[in-house]
Amino acid sequence: MAVTSHDVARLAGVSQATVSRALRDDPRVSQQTRNAVAEAAQALGYVRSEIGRSLSTRSTHQIAMVADLDNALYPRLVAPLHDALMHRGYRMVVLAERGDEMAAFTRLLDGSVDGAVLTTSQLRSSLPFMLRTKQFPFVQMNRISDLAEADSVTADNSAGAAAVAGLLAAQGHKRIGVLAGPDTTSSSRDREAGFREALDKRGIDLPSRRVARGEFTYGDGSRGLRELMSGDDRPTAVFCVTDLLAVGALHEAHVMGLRVPEDVSIVGFDDLELAAWPGINLTTVRVDFLRMAELAADLILDRLIVGRAAPTRHHVLPTELILRGTHRSRLAR
Amino acid sequence: MAVTSHDVARLAGVSQATVSRALRDDPRVSQQTRNAVAEAAQALGYVRSEIGRSLSTRSTHQIAMVADLDNALYPRLVAPLHDALMHRGYRMVVLAERGDEMAAFTRLLDGSVDGAVLTTSQLRSSLPFMLRTKQFPFVQMNRISDLAEADSVTADNSAGAAAVAGLLAAQGHKRIGVLAGPDTTSSSRDREAGFREALDKRGIDLPSRRVARGEFTYGDGSRGLRELMSGDDRPTAVFCVTDLLAVGALHEAHVMGLRVPEDVSIVGFDDLELAAWPGINLTTVRVDFLRMAELAADLILDRLIVGRAAPTRHHVLPTELILRGTHRSRLAR
Repeated sequence: MAVTSHDVARLAGVSQATVSRALRDDPRVSQQTRNAVAEAAQALGYVRSEIGRSLSTRSTHQIAMVADLDNALYPRLVAPLHDALMHRGYRMVVLAERGDEMAAFTRLLDGSVDGAVLTTSQLRSSLPFMLRTKQFPFVQMNRISDLAEADSVTADNSAGAAAVAGLLAAQGHKRIGVLAGPDTTSSSRDREAGFREALDKRGIDLPSRRVARGEFTYGDGSRGLRELMSGDDRPTAVFCVTDLLAVGALHEAHVMGLRVPEDVSIVGFDDLELAAWPGINLTTVRVDFLRMAELAADLILDRLIVGRAAPTRHHVLPTELILRGTHRSRLAR
Repeated sequence: MAVTSHDVARLAGVSQATVSRALRDDPRVSQQTRNAVAEAAQALGYVRSEIGRSLSTRSTHQIAMVADLDNALYPRLVAPLHDALMHRGYRMVVLAERGDEMAAFTRLLDGSVDGAVLTTSQLRSSLPFMLRTKQFPFVQMNRISDLAEADSVTADNSAGAAAVAGLLAAQGHKRIGVLAGPDTTSSSRDREAGFREALDKRGIDLPSRRVARGEFTYGDGSRGLRELMSGDDRPTAVFCVTDLLAVGALHEAHVMGLRVPEDVSIVGFDDLELAAWPGINLTTVRVDFLRMAELAADLILDRLIVGRAAPTRHHVLPTELILRGTHRSRLAR
């Protein structure tokens, strides 16, 4: 059986990630650890097989970011990933994927990049499956597909949404609505499911008439809020699965003559830059996109070394509830 | 004297750009024109010298976009430039330039890209000078440096600002303020200068106490408006050299209890996506960033063919005044 980086890690008494880093002379690994890993690798005959392969393969030192350039979230992903890759000696090529997965597949496989960070995966995306068939190194960032056998880093969307549910329930809200995104994305699905489950635990119902679904846009936030507020049992609080939906909802509330948070609480998710603008001042859930990008860069570069055979890793980042000015207790009345 | 693409263009009766496109078999050039150019090039002995050089050079088919990933404008530039390059068979590598021009220089020159589109130039930037010294192909997009001998494509910042001045003057405003950006950028400088000149022509003064200067941020828009409104002669209209400054100013006006546009008119520039949000509804100046990206892609790819010796080209794109809800006449009172 071939020696893997796991065997090296076990012998050297370090993690598999440390083995990968040590073998590519990452400065974050101490010289002492690098020596220990090199010795273990040599003892097991790992150096020749794995490093040799890595060196003989022509590396481009480029990683593609497959991005949705029309999504308001992506500026929060592009800059951190660019920086994380640059600090590790890699360049970032941007590939916009606009629904044509076959085109993205062809472009990724033409030898111009060593691997890819996918940020546009949908639950039923075929791109990850196709890349895996071709043994092409990739990781999924922020959103994931149903493909379990792929490295990934996401926010803990379920727990973040549960924290919002906890806040709203503790503040006495009973009639609560949701502005959801496409149910084809893991981020929206997991946020909605986590929110629903946490409400359920507290005996609060979330009927389908209080869930409005749209794209992750300002316009759909605006339309969604109007829809929720047009029924007979208007919610007193609305959870929006991303900030841009919440900003659209804030506007629509204003147009409808509803005061936020006096008449309705509105809470977002992601903590985009505009959430902190004083004119918006949105209560939301912070996702640590810097850390997400660091981990995605580590995962893809580790994967270049350890090859496809090594087990996949999944990082799930904790989120943080950011209390600003768009939520209010119903109990104080 | 060496034959240039100009000679070929003259003989074939087409523009220099058409020569470049025809010689790289760009499908936008008709077969008939391609034949005519090929014949002219052959007759002048241009084919062997220039195309031969292009073919013998190892092309990476990659163009770097040097971008300021922390600037709210850049999402408006990244996607169009990515698409324009992709449609021409090129990949886009993103290089963030965070004030370290020497680092960007080193990364551009390492052979991984054929050329660069600079979007972060300041008037005194040294990067364009250094690249020119090394005969490295580049164009400047949106912002330019003082280096005249470089291809560029910008908006007609001066005329766009003059249109705003004309609007405000026609609506009876006399006390007018400006929220300016860094005077180290051509975009802010040209917008401010064009605005001032157009006011001057109409006999309207723009004293320095009515010009607040900051970065291109929401926060500086907010601070700037407060500064202008704290004096004795409050402006009745404020021109902001970019939309993000205007959005910050709108917020601050609200905080100060000033109604927009009843108490103060606020006009932006760029027509970012948020300017059209109904909750913002900003009167502004539209810049055609799609066209800008197309032209930048044409310029850099043409430059790869024609070499450094060919004369530089400068495209200046017309702008369009977009009348929304944040301006109002003083005459109607």
